[in-house]
Amino acid sequence: MERVYNFSAGPSMLPVPVLEKAAEEMLCYGTSGMSVMEMSHRSPEYDAIIKDAEAMLRKLLNIPDNYKVLFLQGGASTQFAAVPLNLMKRTGKADYVVTGQFSGKAFKEAVKLGYDAKCIATTKDDNFDHIPKITPDMVRPDAAYVHVCYNNTIYGTKYPEVPDTGDVPLVADMSSCILSEPVDVSKFAVIYAGAQKNMAPAGMTLVIVREDMLDFAEEKMPTMLEWKIMAENGSMYNTPPCYTIYIAKLVYEWLLSIGGLEEMKRRNVKKAKLLYDYLDNQDYYIVPVKKESRSMMNVTFVTGDPDLDKKFATEASANGLKNLKGHRSVGGMRASIYNAMPYEGVEKLVAFMKEFAKNNPKK
Amino acid sequence: MERVYNFSAGPSMLPVPVLEKAAEEMLCYGTSGMSVMEMSHRSPEYDAIIKDAEAMLRKLLNIPDNYKVLFLQGGASTQFAAVPLNLMKRTGKADYVVTGQFSGKAFKEAVKLGYDAKCIATTKDDNFDHIPKITPDMVRPDAAYVHVCYNNTIYGTKYPEVPDTGDVPLVADMSSCILSEPVDVSKFAVIYAGAQKNMAPAGMTLVIVREDMLDFAEEKMPTMLEWKIMAENGSMYNTPPCYTIYIAKLVYEWLLSIGGLEEMKRRNVKKAKLLYDYLDNQDYYIVPVKKESRSMMNVTFVTGDPDLDKKFATEASANGLKNLKGHRSVGGMRASIYNAMPYEGVEKLVAFMKEFAKNNPKK
Repeated sequence: MERVYNFSAGPSMLPVPVLEKAAEEMLCYGTSGMSVMEMSHRSPEYDAIIKDAEAMLRKLLNIPDNYKVLFLQGGASTQFAAVPLNLMKRTGKADYVVTGQFSGKAFKEAVKLGYDAKCIATTKDDNFDHIPKITPDMVRPDAAYVHVCYNNTIYGTKYPEVPDTGDVPLVADMSSCILSEPVDVSKFAVIYAGAQKNMAPAGMTLVIVREDMLDFAEEKMPTMLEWKIMAENGSMYNTPPCYTIYIAKLVYEWLLSIGGLEEMKRRNVKKAKLLYDYLDNQDYYIVPVKKESRSMMNVTFVTGDPDLDKKFATEASANGLKNLKGHRSVGGMRASIYNAMPYEGVEKLVAFMKEFAKNNPKK
Repeated sequence: MERVYNFSAGPSMLPVPVLEKAAEEMLCYGTSGMSVMEMSHRSPEYDAIIKDAEAMLRKLLNIPDNYKVLFLQGGASTQFAAVPLNLMKRTGKADYVVTGQFSGKAFKEAVKLGYDAKCIATTKDDNFDHIPKITPDMVRPDAAYVHVCYNNTIYGTKYPEVPDTGDVPLVADMSSCILSEPVDVSKFAVIYAGAQKNMAPAGMTLVIVREDMLDFAEEKMPTMLEWKIMAENGSMYNTPPCYTIYIAKLVYEWLLSIGGLEEMKRRNVKKAKLLYDYLDNQDYYIVPVKKESRSMMNVTFVTGDPDLDKKFATEASANGLKNLKGHRSVGGMRASIYNAMPYEGVEKLVAFMKEFAKNNPKK
């Protein structure tokens, strides 16, 4: 059976060498005589895996020494609660920018937990078609943090630059753009990301947290959501998602082997340019997102006719171009072209788009 | 490289056919053209996997229709918080039986969250060497639930029968004995279990909850810990730990293929009997646990001499019998003989124990 080009928004494609290595080591990792799945998380073999994973990630993202790296469970959705539970006590209030479904959920979760959370900017009235400009004067100076979702998977938008929140700590959900290009970690107080787009299968959540953010946890909160406890225990307060972390390690290894995030960015820019350049030079498909807010990872487009959109996704799928249907809350099409999507995948997509436009003239 | 016999307390051995199948399907699952790791959790292929997993589990455990099955993240440790957050509101108080480290942590978590949690029985003063008899008169009649840890991994004890809590709902952490033998689910209000002993690699937590227990969640709690939300969304409120659930499905499939839990119990009884019979008929090793409370999954024993214990674990490891060192908080030895440990593994262990006793006379 041939492998397809999988444009899924997540879980999504993984590099083939990673999958090959995982298959090869499935029954026996190195000289251990067992699968990584079967390994005690307290064993020297596993300890080397999780330490290597952290060291490689630190190298890839150039993470400063005063930041802790945590490999957790529960997805970014669990961090929607963990962020306020770990940080609100700093000042008692926090500001949120709502640029799509997930940043909206993060905001609602803080409100649900009973906190003074304020939405300081949203593009909801424009159907989330761009990222608002954030300036320090929009932020409450005594906010514990400002929360943003750095790349919006569903709408296909991304912050063009790190938002300026003045002295207020910046917290970013980077689930769908982590490791796609270099990022200046020092500009953020906390970065978190679900693994299932650019890192590993679903089931692991990365949290990168500046040490001075570890001292504000609520007393009456679930221990497992407390960053400080996890940091003190090297992500092993309980059994971590060992195998998912191992796959993440293989992905980090692969990223380093190709030249790190500068090279990854070069490849991602090339892929996204191919697709956006085509879109900008035809009039069959429409990109609903404003140019300056475009995501390099998730490219959304529509024909303007829901029936044609449906036909597009179905025919693309029959041609080995999978999961191009837009999110159920948006419609249209979405091509998620994460790190592991090869350039050929985007070439094939553009070729199919041209063919489809030719064969399906609009009325 | 030959596979070893891995007596780890968890993560632990998985059935070889499961690992082989996982390796075989790593780059392409069926005709999907992708790995299960890469699959959208909203795809028809993955929907079939998670539905099959639930159906198989329901068959294996004969789960009544008025129970929901949830595949969550965070480990049993996260459930230590989720249990009170989901149930305390029923009456405002709950009772705990403390028979080891994990039941102690569950109790402490309820206290930490500010609840009226009462330890109604503990064997701490006896170094957790047995399971106390629980009778309805020990339980506060208006308790929201009674919490027990059904099998104590660290100490090697297990409830010889389902404790009688009268009309008060029974909640059991079954992490280290789930699927080792049939269990009457209807006697429990909630059963939960981390996957990494008898089900899958670490990273998935099973919760089996009676429907009438879904209506007591705190308002101000993390959404991701709310059983009702997860039940209403078929464990897919957010992206579930897809690949770990897939491996669990392969394990359930394997259990059904060998004849279900009756056959699994027959094999487990046979393995445990071989080891305990040997231990009961010699005087070199001492079993610290009282006979009627013995676990079929975790067998603890000591020589009485910490240096000899250390030597035992080291030499056993050199002979392909891995991870026999007891838990760091207890010392001595522990052989975890979960479902996937073959009978030959226990035979080899007993042979080694005889040899070691002969070669290392006590002073």
